[in-house]
Amino acid sequence: MKKLINQPEDFVRQSLQGMALAHSDRLKVHLDPHFIYRADAPIRNKVAIISGGGSGHEPMHGGFVGGGMLDAACPGEVFTSPTPDQMLEAAKTVHGGAGVLNIVKNYSGDVMNFEMAAELAHSEDIPVLNILIDDDVAVKDSLYTQGRRGVGTTVLAEKICGAAADRGYDLPAIAQLCRKVNLNGRSMGIALTSCTVPAKGSPTFELGDTEMEIGIGIHGEPGRQRMPLQSADDIAEMLAVSIIEDTDYSRQVREWDGKTGEWVEVPLSDRPFAPGDAVLAFVNSMGGTPLSELYIIYRKLAEICERKHLTIVRNLIGPYITALDMQGCSITLLKMDDELINLWDAPVNTPALRWGS
Amino acid sequence: MKKLINQPEDFVRQSLQGMALAHSDRLKVHLDPHFIYRADAPIRNKVAIISGGGSGHEPMHGGFVGGGMLDAACPGEVFTSPTPDQMLEAAKTVHGGAGVLNIVKNYSGDVMNFEMAAELAHSEDIPVLNILIDDDVAVKDSLYTQGRRGVGTTVLAEKICGAAADRGYDLPAIAQLCRKVNLNGRSMGIALTSCTVPAKGSPTFELGDTEMEIGIGIHGEPGRQRMPLQSADDIAEMLAVSIIEDTDYSRQVREWDGKTGEWVEVPLSDRPFAPGDAVLAFVNSMGGTPLSELYIIYRKLAEICERKHLTIVRNLIGPYITALDMQGCSITLLKMDDELINLWDAPVNTPALRWGS
Repeated sequence: MKKLINQPEDFVRQSLQGMALAHSDRLKVHLDPHFIYRADAPIRNKVAIISGGGSGHEPMHGGFVGGGMLDAACPGEVFTSPTPDQMLEAAKTVHGGAGVLNIVKNYSGDVMNFEMAAELAHSEDIPVLNILIDDDVAVKDSLYTQGRRGVGTTVLAEKICGAAADRGYDLPAIAQLCRKVNLNGRSMGIALTSCTVPAKGSPTFELGDTEMEIGIGIHGEPGRQRMPLQSADDIAEMLAVSIIEDTDYSRQVREWDGKTGEWVEVPLSDRPFAPGDAVLAFVNSMGGTPLSELYIIYRKLAEICERKHLTIVRNLIGPYITALDMQGCSITLLKMDDELINLWDAPVNTPALRWGS
Repeated sequence: MKKLINQPEDFVRQSLQGMALAHSDRLKVHLDPHFIYRADAPIRNKVAIISGGGSGHEPMHGGFVGGGMLDAACPGEVFTSPTPDQMLEAAKTVHGGAGVLNIVKNYSGDVMNFEMAAELAHSEDIPVLNILIDDDVAVKDSLYTQGRRGVGTTVLAEKICGAAADRGYDLPAIAQLCRKVNLNGRSMGIALTSCTVPAKGSPTFELGDTEMEIGIGIHGEPGRQRMPLQSADDIAEMLAVSIIEDTDYSRQVREWDGKTGEWVEVPLSDRPFAPGDAVLAFVNSMGGTPLSELYIIYRKLAEICERKHLTIVRNLIGPYITALDMQGCSITLLKMDDELINLWDAPVNTPALRWGS
């Protein structure tokens, strides 16, 4: 294992300590339990947005804490869900009186722990809603997931919901917005190499020198298929067409309703992308793939979108939801409307995403 | 070779085409000869800032084209200098009547070609000054370099000189500022793995499974020493102490004076960092190293700076000057004063560096 680390067991803690030192002007890091939060939290009468999940996907989520995006992020150990006490402490720290939205990627551990945290917060009179992101079209019922996995759309939901909170949306309205983003978003990824978890010290899976895996998960969970390495254009085609032509668009997720203190089964339904739609195109590095290659993927993606009569109105290109040092990329398309474009363009001031401020 | 590319010979062109499609709101890409330029160029009566060099270091330089930074960037083939015709066409496109500053990394091909371009521009009545960046303390007279190589300080010089141009500095004043940034900046890098040039298809050099190379160049040029893999803390210590305690601070560079149309030998002298100095700390990924590891390096760097009585007043952490997919990092320290802090904080609006706009 070749990494810029000290002891593997110190990886998460020391990375957080570095973040705290680097960004003390805008965020603070609480250790034991670990969470990252806005230095100016709580913001009175603003809905607080919290996310979290296993570490190893940086900058997600900690790099998205700041003005116009997340109020707090709860990092677990590498590829391991954070615990309810982290989420509860984060909620108590950033709650400004208008409730808390937890944006939760659909992995069983995250879902369970955020549910427990929501119940605990509820018992302390903090209104909480949990909304799941399950946008990965590659597979259903994966290694750590019932239903679809949550991937790239999470980044976009955090930006858009963060802006809505700044604009004064109340908790039910932000929850509804987050559902809409999730339903409008679809993603798929591909790996050229495995990642290596520091504590394990060896690759999570083996890929031959001329192999790739399409539909890979951000923890190295199995995708759809292994195949010989394809060209960037063919890879972009496989990912984009799987996303655009996806027809499996009925989902049923269990959401915590902080108002009633009950769990509700929420049937969700959306439609695939249709000609004439406006989209945000997000080309993401899995961590080890440099920017130059992402632009080659984007070049083909733009051509495919044009062929499919989708208009790319915004884009995001870079390493935003990674899998440690994995080489590969993912594509996310998010169907946009005026509300989403407006919220996307709103100022944001975080370590990893910043404009207009 | 595992990369998201099509034919290796199309790597640079297709990556540029992707950039053009992605950022058409703020920049344009001219192909044959290749250069990237601000969509709103030329800016009347503003000094135009141009840089360039071999591709493979993205986002440098193309990702730094935009408001508050570069007016144009000239990308060569991978790790190959751009040609004088690229630089001349770029200068003619972005020259707004106040002259052109070429920021040139000290590699023999770049230096020679930017010199030739300056002469050609001069013959077309465009005042040009070339300022070299030679900040790498690792080695002298490397594979492609006489003197020291130009690395991380280039990114900082492009930001600071871009801001100065916006503020109305004239060409001699910006040239003087660029010299100051170069003299105030020092860098050193380390590789955990080689990079792989697409056209070659195999690693540029071999490093054993438990080896690293300290003082590496951004094209894989030999560094100071190969040694067994060290901890992140020890690596940060080696890099930072080499930078801070560097005493080889006399340089003599040959600069093109566009006013007199003559080459001048400019003796430069600076002093090493001294206790009490304020610095910008830049921790850079070589391309394949993820953000989480950079924060672990930053954590130790902050401790070292404190021990050395250097106050980190600004920082930059991420992949900004890369070597394709190489795993590793570099540290740059730039001694700051009020002028440099003020220019660093000025608004910038480029694909890779953006704030305040």
